[in-house]
Amino acid sequence: MLKPLGDRVIVKVQEEEEQTVGGIVLASNAKQKPQTGEVVAVGEGALNDKGDRIKPSIAKGDKVLFDKYAGSEVSYEDQKYLVLHEKDVMAIVE
Amino acid sequence: MLKPLGDRVIVKVQEEEEQTVGGIVLASNAKQKPQTGEVVAVGEGALNDKGDRIKPSIAKGDKVLFDKYAGSEVSYEDQKYLVLHEKDVMAIVE
Amino acid sequence: MLKPLGDRVIVKVQEEEEQTVGGIVLASNAKQKPQTGEVVAVGEGALNDKGDRIKPSIAKGDKVLFDKYAGSEVSYEDQKYLVLHEKDVMAIVE
Amino acid sequence: MLKPLGDRVIVKVQEEEEQTVGGIVLASNAKQKPQTGEVVAVGEGALNDKGDRIKPSIAKGDKVLFDKYAGSEVSYEDQKYLVLHEKDVMAIVE
Amino acid sequence: MLKPLGDRVIVKVQEEEEQTVGGIVLASNAKQKPQTGEVVAVGEGALNDKGDRIKPSIAKGDKVLFDKYAGSEVSYEDQKYLVLHEKDVMAIVE
Amino acid sequence: MLKPLGDRVIVKVQEEEEQTVGGIVLASNAKQKPQTGEVVAVGEGALNDKGDRIKPSIAKGDKVLFDKYAGSEVSYEDQKYLVLHEKDVMAIVE
Amino acid sequence: MLKPLGDRVIVKVQEEEEQTVGGIVLASNAKQKPQTGEVVAVGEGALNDKGDRIKPSIAKGDKVLFDKYAGSEVSYEDQKYLVLHEKDVMAIVE
Repeated sequence: MLKPLGDRVIVKVQEEEEQTVGGIVLASNAKQKPQTGEVVAVGEGALNDKGDRIKPSIAKGDKVLFDKYAGSEVSYEDQKYLVLHEKDVMAIVE
Repeated sequence: MLKPLGDRVIVKVQEEEEQTVGGIVLASNAKQKPQTGEVVAVGEGALNDKGDRIKPSIAKGDKVLFDKYAGSEVSYEDQKYLVLHEKDVMAIVE
Repeated sequence: MLKPLGDRVIVKVQEEEEQTVGGIVLASNAKQKPQTGEVVAVGEGALNDKGDRIKPSIAKGDKVLFDKYAGSEVSYEDQKYLVLHEKDVMAIVE
Repeated sequence: MLKPLGDRVIVKVQEEEEQTVGGIVLASNAKQKPQTGEVVAVGEGALNDKGDRIKPSIAKGDKVLFDKYAGSEVSYEDQKYLVLHEKDVMAIVE
Repeated sequence: MLKPLGDRVIVKVQEEEEQTVGGIVLASNAKQKPQTGEVVAVGEGALNDKGDRIKPSIAKGDKVLFDKYAGSEVSYEDQKYLVLHEKDVMAIVE
Repeated sequence: MLKPLGDRVIVKVQEEEEQTVGGIVLASNAKQKPQTGEVVAVGEGALNDKGDRIKPSIAKGDKVLFDKYAGSEVSYEDQKYLVLHEKDVMAIVE
Repeated sequence: MLKPLGDRVIVKVQEEEEQTVGGIVLASNAKQKPQTGEVVAVGEGALNDKGDRIKPSIAKGDKVLFDKYAGSEVSYEDQKYLVLHEKDVMAIVE
């Protein structure tokens, strides 16, 4: 199991063939290609100036929309994961 | 439904043929091409240093003027949306 | 009507033929070409760290001097406007 | 009359033929060519984080030494002026 | 023995042949190649604005996932070590 | 007389023939060529966030070691001076 | 004697032939070549926002590991020294 640090989240990437989540088709965009996935682990949050954790706005199980070029890819038991900073997550798909 | 995170807003983009909102015609400008649209969802706001949310100045239903090259495009049920940061919204069209 | 957000101001651009405001002729300068105009709308001001608005130093009706390359141009009823950040306004012409 | 905003000062530029102020001859320097001039107007000062003005260290009438490539040039009644940020003024010539 | 300063950690690098830690195979990624290793020493933590140490989230003995191109390599008794900043550690492998 | 502003100091540059101060010979270094000189004037110090002056660590008469490429050169009565920011002074030669 | 200012330290550079300190052989690394040396002088520390000195984590006599390309070289009585910022020191060799 991977435990992300700070403001990181780990996302199980949606396969490109299945890229319509809840009916959303992502437009191709040369600059930024958003993708969707499911959050499988969330860090404790970044530290603020006083040393307290900033509670993440994202929870395990959320479907999220993120920038394709953000984060670092790892694979685990034939599933691709992405380690993202919370700021790279644009929206939650409800 | 997309729920934007932090200081993001989701805008329903005005078609280019309909680019006069309230009589405003946007001048062509090589550097920055502003566009208009209607806000369909607003995030809870960015976090300040104390961990409180900064209330967004934009509300659902506002007609807004934004920089064409800002944000990330997604499409949903044949309508283009743009995920923008609040700072990329220049003005509200009243 | 356009309502600028945050620290933005909207300026009615002075035509280049009329570029002497109060007798001031702007020197040509390869790096920065200042221009003048009249402020037609002012935002509520930027937010400081405590979430309070910073009162703008510029008011509606002020004649201002700004950098020609700053801001985004829009036109409305055959009049060009410029959406500027307050920091891009160099001086008030009195 | 020009009223500079924030931390800006307006300087009446010393002609290059008269570039010795109080006996100081400015050395040629490929990177930075300092120049002298007389301050004709001073802004109210930049705002600090609490919203108070930071009192400028420069007063009207001061002879100042500044970087030639800093600021924006304007001319008024056949006299060149320079709009500078206070931080671009290196020293007061006494 | 090396005692890292501030927010640095020293990691005993996992050999590339042994790059599956707990069954995780790291995907090749042109931009960022994550690697794993074991933490052998942790600094006292960075200083916050008040001069207090920010307690590191990583402890000696943790298996960590980090960006291959981060940090500086040193070798000690035929073992490669990497001196990393804590922010370059993406996740703890549990 | 030149009165430096803020965190600036004015240094009387040591001639290159006399570049051994107290027996120190400065090594040639392609990236940074330190030089020595004597401080002839010190500014009141930079302003901190509260508007108080930060007392300079350098005093008039100090022999200082600085980066050759830092600062702006001026000459006054056949003597070269350098206007430096305090942060560009590396060490005091005692 | 050189007295470093602020957060600087002065390090007596370890000769390259003697680059194993306590048995540590530094690996060649195209990006960053760490080196070792002995601290001979430490500044009073950087100033924090309140104007207090941040106590350095390094003391005179410490053996330190630093990035070869950091700092400025000076030589004194046939010994090379390096003037480094504390943040460029990676670890203390104990």
